[in-house]
Amino acid sequence: MTSTPAPLTPVDPARLTEVLDGRWAQVRRDAREQLGSARYAPVYGESMPQARERVTALTRELAATGRVSLGFPRKYGGADDAGGSVVSVEMLAFADLSLMVKAGVQWGLFGGAVQALGTKRQHDAYLPDIMSFALPGCFAMTETGHGSDVQQLRTTCTYDPATQTFDLHTPHEAARKDYIGNAAQDGRMAVVFAQLVTLGEGRGVHAFLVPIRDEDGAPMPGVTIGDDGPKAGLLGVDNGRLSFDHVTVPRDMLLDRYGQVAADGTYTSTIANETRRFFTMLGTLVRGRVSVGGSAGSATKVALEIAVRYGDVRRQFAAPGEDREVVVNDYRVHQRKLLPALATTYALHFAQEELVSRMHDVLGAGEVDEAAQRELESRAAGLKVANTWHATRTIQLAREACGGAGYLAENRLPALKADTDVFTTFEGDNTVLLQLVAKGLLTGYRDAFGSLDGWGRAQFVAEQVRETVLERTAARALIQRLVDAVPGRDDDVALTDRGWQLRALEDREKHVLGGAIKRLRKGAATPGTRPFDVFNDVQDHVLAAAQAHIDRIVLEAFVAGIERTADPAARALLSRVCDLYALSTIEADKGWFLEHGRLTPTRAKALTGAVNDLLGELRPHMRTLVDAFAVPEAWLNCAVLAEEPGRQQAMAEHDAALRAAGAEPQQDATATDLQMAPAQ
Amino acid sequence: MTSTPAPLTPVDPARLTEVLDGRWAQVRRDAREQLGSARYAPVYGESMPQARERVTALTRELAATGRVSLGFPRKYGGADDAGGSVVSVEMLAFADLSLMVKAGVQWGLFGGAVQALGTKRQHDAYLPDIMSFALPGCFAMTETGHGSDVQQLRTTCTYDPATQTFDLHTPHEAARKDYIGNAAQDGRMAVVFAQLVTLGEGRGVHAFLVPIRDEDGAPMPGVTIGDDGPKAGLLGVDNGRLSFDHVTVPRDMLLDRYGQVAADGTYTSTIANETRRFFTMLGTLVRGRVSVGGSAGSATKVALEIAVRYGDVRRQFAAPGEDREVVVNDYRVHQRKLLPALATTYALHFAQEELVSRMHDVLGAGEVDEAAQRELESRAAGLKVANTWHATRTIQLAREACGGAGYLAENRLPALKADTDVFTTFEGDNTVLLQLVAKGLLTGYRDAFGSLDGWGRAQFVAEQVRETVLERTAARALIQRLVDAVPGRDDDVALTDRGWQLRALEDREKHVLGGAIKRLRKGAATPGTRPFDVFNDVQDHVLAAAQAHIDRIVLEAFVAGIERTADPAARALLSRVCDLYALSTIEADKGWFLEHGRLTPTRAKALTGAVNDLLGELRPHMRTLVDAFAVPEAWLNCAVLAEEPGRQQAMAEHDAALRAAGAEPQQDATATDLQMAPAQ
Repeated sequence: MTSTPAPLTPVDPARLTEVLDGRWAQVRRDAREQLGSARYAPVYGESMPQARERVTALTRELAATGRVSLGFPRKYGGADDAGGSVVSVEMLAFADLSLMVKAGVQWGLFGGAVQALGTKRQHDAYLPDIMSFALPGCFAMTETGHGSDVQQLRTTCTYDPATQTFDLHTPHEAARKDYIGNAAQDGRMAVVFAQLVTLGEGRGVHAFLVPIRDEDGAPMPGVTIGDDGPKAGLLGVDNGRLSFDHVTVPRDMLLDRYGQVAADGTYTSTIANETRRFFTMLGTLVRGRVSVGGSAGSATKVALEIAVRYGDVRRQFAAPGEDREVVVNDYRVHQRKLLPALATTYALHFAQEELVSRMHDVLGAGEVDEAAQRELESRAAGLKVANTWHATRTIQLAREACGGAGYLAENRLPALKADTDVFTTFEGDNTVLLQLVAKGLLTGYRDAFGSLDGWGRAQFVAEQVRETVLERTAARALIQRLVDAVPGRDDDVALTDRGWQLRALEDREKHVLGGAIKRLRKGAATPGTRPFDVFNDVQDHVLAAAQAHIDRIVLEAFVAGIERTADPAARALLSRVCDLYALSTIEADKGWFLEHGRLTPTRAKALTGAVNDLLGELRPHMRTLVDAFAVPEAWLNCAVLAEEPGRQQAMAEHDAALRAAGAEPQQDATATDLQMAPAQ
Repeated sequence: MTSTPAPLTPVDPARLTEVLDGRWAQVRRDAREQLGSARYAPVYGESMPQARERVTALTRELAATGRVSLGFPRKYGGADDAGGSVVSVEMLAFADLSLMVKAGVQWGLFGGAVQALGTKRQHDAYLPDIMSFALPGCFAMTETGHGSDVQQLRTTCTYDPATQTFDLHTPHEAARKDYIGNAAQDGRMAVVFAQLVTLGEGRGVHAFLVPIRDEDGAPMPGVTIGDDGPKAGLLGVDNGRLSFDHVTVPRDMLLDRYGQVAADGTYTSTIANETRRFFTMLGTLVRGRVSVGGSAGSATKVALEIAVRYGDVRRQFAAPGEDREVVVNDYRVHQRKLLPALATTYALHFAQEELVSRMHDVLGAGEVDEAAQRELESRAAGLKVANTWHATRTIQLAREACGGAGYLAENRLPALKADTDVFTTFEGDNTVLLQLVAKGLLTGYRDAFGSLDGWGRAQFVAEQVRETVLERTAARALIQRLVDAVPGRDDDVALTDRGWQLRALEDREKHVLGGAIKRLRKGAATPGTRPFDVFNDVQDHVLAAAQAHIDRIVLEAFVAGIERTADPAARALLSRVCDLYALSTIEADKGWFLEHGRLTPTRAKALTGAVNDLLGELRPHMRTLVDAFAVPEAWLNCAVLAEEPGRQQAMAEHDAALRAAGAEPQQDATATDLQMAPAQ
């Protein structure tokens, strides 16, 4: 049933790198060439104070290179290049993740908020010092008691026309700002998100520029600063807590692009609806979420490079009765771990590249296109989820694939694991973000501002959800053509037929979504049900729809990426990697495809065989696939990659000498006779 | 289709604790009462030197309590209680995992090896000082180049009749001992595993007692000691590297219970076959692997307790249009994460308890029963795999379930995650151990010593594999009765029918194993195939058989545990938890059951519904289920558990006051209107 494409030929990794580098190739190359030294590599075994000191100094150095300013306006020395700024952060993530987060806080979140929510007066006053790191700052949104529900933040900022100042206040401990980067040590100022109250009326969440430390580093009057202390990772980032005890904030420190308070307390905004205003403001901050997804991808690539290169030299057991060298990458089960993860990493890379490109165009469009912005946010949420969960899973398997060596700090994997762990819950908890994606699917972005209590009023859902017409991503014409070309009866189609793969994921998305809608409608129509219960009863189904949507989007992006590949050998290899992504994704949810008659049992079994065939076919190209990530060797900073080949060589020579002397230890134990060294 | 059992009633957690405490209840209670203080709780944010110093001091204190001696002979002050010694280690794992590993190295591995492989003379000379920690020691088995293939270790120990001493030598860097606990700092002596050579003949791996440091802590002549440096976790354990440059070892330092070298170099052993001798020696060391599985279980319980208690107070979004309090544990998707993990934790607890009991009886039997020992090793391997992978997955989900709080060291989860991470690859890499389990299934333990190259000579496999008759675990009569009582047609049987659940897992195990055997036979019969390729081609299938076997064993142990439960309410609750374990296990492999016609699509959908119903039913009992673990509060050492209830209370009161004043922030955002705080 499986078609037999021509055998793969060796590929120059540089040809793949060209494709992966994409639209911001220049930014990527510049980072490799100018920053690709040991100076930016991670350092292991530091204490928290040491790590903070080093990373702060490095952040200052980085500022001096000017490489952090891409996203800022040209008039202040930037390049108005939102896409480039995100790709810069992604590149830092190959090196040191504390530095990446520290830079992301300073220039992405703090600087980005001033840029997006402030006006010219504030830009003039603060952007130059923000860009140079002369003014280290914080992005103080999250509260201890409110992570995900930002619209319900409890910090208040109340205007007093008599003094023409705001009174910023933390009403109770659950309202303190928490997990705030740059707060515990370096921050001099913070963008604080709080409920604006003026003339006795709440106007929703707004952002205020608030000095938190004086020139000497002492907290400003009324500001209490706490330290979040040691964390699982990211030791170089000084996360902390901020509380405000009736702190006076001058009127002109309200970042007032979307809402203004006049001297007499009158509130004005071009966006009348409060919720719509809130989401418009937050929508301008999407870069952060896109950066986290991309950075998770970078960390995943480093982990896979380490595991693949280690697995190419490391031996485990001798092949019984043969002189053949068997390294761990030759084992089927090892391939079953590493290769689908590698294929998914490629797929997500192309999806991320497409997202960055779309983000760049939407943010740079001048006029706000609300539909495009909603869709961008949904895509950013979905890919942040996919990238960060994939990173957590893959770094874990890479760590395990390196055995005891993977547990030693000197081999990088512990840092990758610890530093990226928080990615699944910051910049939006992944589960909550999946819900955001699902909401987009259910409402089809229609009426997104007017009726935001969507699932809450389940009746609304029953009436308003769009028919499940899927939007296409890039290369939409090509994809439609491939899908349309698939003959009607699945069983006649090769599993490697791209159109069949695309259609399988598309069909699943439609069906799962349709099923969730039916259940929501039925629940809403049942007398006496409460909206929360109706929604909650279907929550797992709804999130499955979001996941199916993300899988489809990612496959389409991979197909579009292959389409852009000119080199024939590279294209053939990518095509095979794409097969593995598609088929292993379908295999992972085989239960659904069987349950819904989309796969016959016979074809399901063939699917497992096809995945295994692909593993065999891709085995010789594993090294090429990781080399193509073009991670500077100095950034890897992994002891075992430097040492292991020499060790294995010495061992092989020693064994050969023993064999020659007829004194080799007996070889009757084989891969099946396993006794492993106990724990230490 | 689902039967409707009587609704659950509230259960006193103490009733569950009694059942969980099992045969070694006294050891567990003693540890809680005598060690359950903050002194033994984990410490966060230490540097490596600080952690090592504290844990070494604590190990000494622990020795002074006498609680570490249970496994040693009575004549030296122990209790000949192998089971109790493993349960002691499991209890330490609730507190500080560095201390647990340090204790495991000293008394389990080092002391255990001297006890199991040495003779009276050596016991008299060393056991008292080992037990008191006056003689800290190492278990030096693993080499840098040889983790899993212990039989092929490269370190040599060559006897010279002229001097009546051994010459211990590390031939190249890949043969250095690595990851050795107690080596970098405290160890004074090591049990070193090396190839014994005497009179020019290799006799296989033996263990030697080798001083590595003098009284002043300086390395002995010829011994090079390295430090593995910082690790992902377990900072309090001083793992290191040992190399030997022709170190002289006196003849009486060979641990000679299973093999002796006379003064003239003559070798003697009661076990003539070298491989059989090797496995007999290693078989005596099974306690370590059992301890790791149990300790992983303890860490999992702590993580679940933290996540469940946090989720019982933490709010995320308000229920739209209602005053109802919704906490995160009320969300279906949150329950989908925590409750099946909790059910599996219960299942594994009962399986582990049964394993410890069997281990105790086999090791204490005096006469070695080889079949029983093989089966014990296979069971120990399988449950080590299941427990440690479950720990890695569950601690990760618990960490994510606590959001940003889960990333702060003060909330324990980072330490749990980092410290247990190595469990999946030490004491036997999990994948390699799964293979060991599979081998046991294929050979049925028959002929286990004579033909250890099993799959290697695939022809052998084709002839020798047993028919797939499954062995029953404890409560075998009850289980057989339940299975036999299931009517023929599955579709008529309730999904909550225990017999059906048992039969489903049993049937899958038989079928997967049978399929693997067929493929091995076919491969071996194909002319020109090489044994490694035949095996490798089926490796994933073979490991699936091992996994299916473990799932079945675990379910049977849970059923046996329920059978021992007297309290009716506790029994009913455990029975429902067991349903969740069984059904979520089947659901996770739904693809297989559908593919092989074991579930119809209709029944597969009903299965999902049944799992969801169980989540709803068990929701009110989540807290009870974690309280039953009876972890001393001082050991939890989790800041957010102490602070969060108060914070949520203050927030609720503040909101009520706002509502009373008519000034509450507007509430039109709901669970669907999600914008999350960006990264820090």
